[in-house]
Parts: sequence; C-alpha cells; structure tokens
Amino acid sequence: MAPPEAREAEFPMAHGCDHSLHKTIHHHGWDRDNAPALRVAPGETVEFDTVDASGGQLSPGSTAEDIGRMDFGKVNPVTGPVFIDGAEPGDAVKVTILGLAPSGWGWTANIPGFGLLADQFAEPALHVWSYDTAAMAPAAFGPGGRVPLKPFCGTIGLAPAEAGTHSVVPPRRVGGNMDIRDIGEGTELWLPVEVAGALFSVGDTHAAQGDGEVCGTAIESPMSVALKFELEKGAAPAFPRFRTRGPVTRHLDGAGYDVTTGIGPDLMQAARDAVSQMVELLSTRTGMAAVDAYMLASVAGDLRISEIVDAPNWVVSFYFPRLVLE
Amino acid sequence: MAPPEAREAEFPMAHGCDHSLHKTIHHHGWDRDNAPALRVAPGETVEFDTVDASGGQLSPGSTAEDIGRMDFGKVNPVTGPVFIDGAEPGDAVKVTILGLAPSGWGWTANIPGFGLLADQFAEPALHVWSYDTAAMAPAAFGPGGRVPLKPFCGTIGLAPAEAGTHSVVPPRRVGGNMDIRDIGEGTELWLPVEVAGALFSVGDTHAAQGDGEVCGTAIESPMSVALKFELEKGAAPAFPRFRTRGPVTRHLDGAGYDVTTGIGPDLMQAARDAVSQMVELLSTRTGMAAVDAYMLASVAGDLRISEIVDAPNWVVSFYFPRLVLE
Repeated sequence: MAPPEAREAEFPMAHGCDHSLHKTIHHHGWDRDNAPALRVAPGETVEFDTVDASGGQLSPGSTAEDIGRMDFGKVNPVTGPVFIDGAEPGDAVKVTILGLAPSGWGWTANIPGFGLLADQFAEPALHVWSYDTAAMAPAAFGPGGRVPLKPFCGTIGLAPAEAGTHSVVPPRRVGGNMDIRDIGEGTELWLPVEVAGALFSVGDTHAAQGDGEVCGTAIESPMSVALKFELEKGAAPAFPRFRTRGPVTRHLDGAGYDVTTGIGPDLMQAARDAVSQMVELLSTRTGMAAVDAYMLASVAGDLRISEIVDAPNWVVSFYFPRLVLE
Repeated sequence: MAPPEAREAEFPMAHGCDHSLHKTIHHHGWDRDNAPALRVAPGETVEFDTVDASGGQLSPGSTAEDIGRMDFGKVNPVTGPVFIDGAEPGDAVKVTILGLAPSGWGWTANIPGFGLLADQFAEPALHVWSYDTAAMAPAAFGPGGRVPLKPFCGTIGLAPAEAGTHSVVPPRRVGGNMDIRDIGEGTELWLPVEVAGALFSVGDTHAAQGDGEVCGTAIESPMSVALKFELEKGAAPAFPRFRTRGPVTRHLDGAGYDVTTGIGPDLMQAARDAVSQMVELLSTRTGMAAVDAYMLASVAGDLRISEIVDAPNWVVSFYFPRLVLE
C-alpha cells in the first residue's frame, strides 16, 4: 500500500475535501490491526473513491455467467481505514454525508445461495444498469419499469474491538454492511468507537435500494463519497443511529404503493411470505420472469414491520411503489 | 341481537352508504358460526360505527388506574359480521375504505404484559387525547410533542375456516387485527375468503399509529367507517394485500427522521434494541418519562427492516419523525 500522500495526488477531489483516498486503498475485512491509510483531525473532510461490491469483477459488459465465476473473497471492498485523532473506545464518531458522485453504471444480481428467497432462486441472474449522472432520472430496468435513484453508502463503519479479521459481509454494533437506504446525502450518522482512532472505512455504494435489500443486491454502483468527521467524547450509542435531513421516500411514493403481507409468529417467515407474494404479483402483472421481479423488488420495494405486538402473530409488509411500473 | 333493519334506522348514515351497522352490533371473537348482522350484495356500501378497543371501558375521563381494572374479555370488539352474497372459499373480497369519521377523542396506554418492551414497562400508563375532527391538526401529547393524525382501521377481516371462536387479538391469513397504519381512506384491501359469505367485521379504529404499534396501543379512537365491498371470484391472495391511493408518510416526514437501529441475528431482538434506544433518545432529549416516550414512539414512529440478507446479522431501524417534537 502506497503512503497516503502519494495516493491523494492522483484523485480529483471533486467535493473540495481536505483529503482524499483512492479506491485502490481498500480492504476486505474489518481488523483493528489494519494500518491506517489516512489520519484526520475531527472537523476534517475526506473524499473516498470506492470500488463496486464485486470488487471490480463485474463491469458494464458482464453477463449472468460472470456471477458464477466470481471470487467471493474479493467482494465488498471498503476504502480506508481512516484514523480519527483523539477517538477512543466509548466515543461516538459523527459522520456527515456531504455528497455522493455516482459513476453512471451499476449492477443487480441474484447470487445463488444469497438473498431472502435463496431457496426459490437458485440460478444466477444479472441486470446491468446505466443512468445519467447529471439528471439522475429514474433508471430503466430492462424487463420493465423505471427505478428512482437515491445514492447511499451500503457499508460504512468502524473496526470492532475484537482482535482478528472479521468478514465485511455482516454488519455489527460498529456499523459496516448495514445497507440502510437512507444513509445518503445530508444524513448524519453516529457510530460507536471501539478502538483507538476509530478506523473508519466506507464502500458498497448503491444508486438505489429498497428497505431490506431483499434479493441480496441493490443497484451496486461505484461512486465517490464526501464525508465530514466529528468526534463526540463519551457519547457512543449502543448501535449506530442517524438523522435524515428531510423526507426519505418522496422519490418513490407519488403514486402510492402495492403492498403484500406475511402474517405469523416468525418475523423472518413473514418477511419471506410478503416478498414471495410481491414477486408473484409483479411477475403476473408484467409478464417478467420471477427472478427479474425479485431483483426489481430488491432495488425499489420496502420491508416494514406493520405490527409486532398482537401475539402470537406479527405482520410484515412489503411496499412496492406503483410509479416504478407506471 | 335485533334484526339488521331495526338497527339501521337508528344510525345517521353520514357517508350516504347503502347500509349501516350500529356499534352495538359487535362481537369479540372470530367464528364461522356467528350469525350475520347484515347481508349485502357485491358493489354495495356499508357504514360501520365502532366501539374503541377497550370495548367502552375507557372514556375521556379515565386514568391509569382504570387500565388495571379493565376486563380483557371485552377488548377489541369488531362491528359485524357482514355476509357478502356469493362469496365462497377461494374468492377475494375487495374492500375499499371510502372514509372514516373520527370521534375527536382517543387513548393510548401501556398495558402491563402487552407490548414490544413489556419487560421494561411493567406499570400501567394512560394518555387521553383530544383532537379537532374538522381541522384534524396534529394532536398534542401531554408530556411533549404533537402527532399528525391519519385515521385507519386496526382490525379488519373475515371469519377463518376453522370452526370455533378465535381470539380477536392476533391477526391471521384472513386479516383481523393487522394494525396496518396505511389501511385508511382510499386504500383498497383484498382479503381471502374462507367461509361462505366471507363474514366481514371491522373495528379497533385508530386516529394515528406508527408501523409496529410498539407499545401495543395506538391513538385508540372510536369512529365510523364507510366501506365498499366487491367480490373477485377465485382470486384469494395467500395473505391480505392492499393498494394505497397515494403517499403514506407525507403527514410525518417533512422534517426528516431520527433513526435508531438494532443489529443482530434475530429480527425480534433487533426491533427491541432499536425501540429501546429510541425511548432513551426521546426521554433524554425531552425530559419526558420513559413510558411516555414509549407511547409517543408507538403512535408516531415506524419500524422498518433495513437489511435482511447480510447473514448472520440483520438491521431493524426505528424511524421517529422529527416534526413531532419541533
């Protein structure tokens, strides 16, 4: 890994940040012993360039066959880590998402063995997206529909206290691969620090995703991200929390929603039932293949818990925005 | 039970429906052998008056002590049942919510032993609400905050196929106590028919509630509900589904959200963690008692599943609309 100052010079710093990190400065596991790629003072800003979640294994010319050839040891790279001066266990790092500069291409896949309905969708599938980074108009989905875009950081977090390398796939108390649709421009995020310097990294940027990311992938799209770091001493939350600057679904909700439900004593099964029915509804209505409906649901539809108190049965609902198909 | 025609004469029919059912025509359990209170043809409309979820045991003058004296055999009455001509098992009944006429008062309680955080909130608590039915402006919460109103039917469903009386508390495949915040004016709801005539009932009307209904109660508020019934032969969905006429959160989202998360391998625990932290955040910020923050979260905040695919850990988020406290 080259010294940070050498890498910084390569990068255009489009957001006018104090620092920048090139996308080659990335890692695949969280580890308290990873050497910092950059050191910043609280109040400073950093622009991160990111690699897409395939780790560069997919490109605009890829096909479904390439999904089967992927090396999963290379997925979900995160750019970093950044050492934040003065950060100690028990503090909160407040990260403000200043902006995202999307690349204009992305991919959504059904990856065998991965996703909420992995048992129903065993074959690989891939949709490659192209979108206009100036207009950021809804992006066309080949089999039908147009998906409003809202870029955000799928993976954003800190190194956990436990020694060793921890997979980048699951999220944890310190954040990571949370895939929260609303960690986009203007959002302020508080993360609990567990190691000296916090060791912040970010990646897995998405051009759009619904709550749940039900097929396992979003519109996976490399982009650069401008972030501001602040330190709140002794203010570590138990889990990450955040504040959105404004509404979070107005890009989607204008025509209302079609909603399916799952009802029963297990939230996971209820979520599966709700999504299975939406896949059936969308494919019946449009004629698209079930796996395409599943991928479309993943990038545009939202999983909500409607009721979690009327024992023994809970209600999980899947909201699909009608404007996607209008 | 008086013959339906005698009861209809008592009721004002404010929505100009074909039929009406007085609130005294109610039952407390779902049973395929309940005698129909009314028989309608597909295409007809019915106005239902409802009793609040306490079954009339609470009133605008009630206090927390009254919670401890409640007879839980009388809770959650539903008005009905209505026999829909021609409905047979395997059909769908499509119900359109034409309108709701709220009463102007309501209550929210912490009921010991009930609610997502029942282990943390063992003492009864009650907040009585008063709101202007003409303006329907946000309603003041005594300990702090104003809650935007959006009336809906908490319990709406059909009789299940299995013989016997089934508790009205849990929802089922045929609907019932689903407590879905968006089954309000303009929504079209499809319910699967399991018995001849469908045997539809409705009640448990709410002036406002967040997704999840986390403390176990909403703004429980009696109101009348005007509904239209249609029949779709052989079109029973596996679980209820619905379509909203337009956006579902614009009454709440104008100032953005404060969001807490829970992260881990169990969705229920993650939901509990997210809500516990929001209760702490709201009570710390405002100085209100934790149980008040819990009730405020229940009537205004939304539980969403942000990520359900990054095994082994899922992310459940609790969204609290900032305008409630601004």
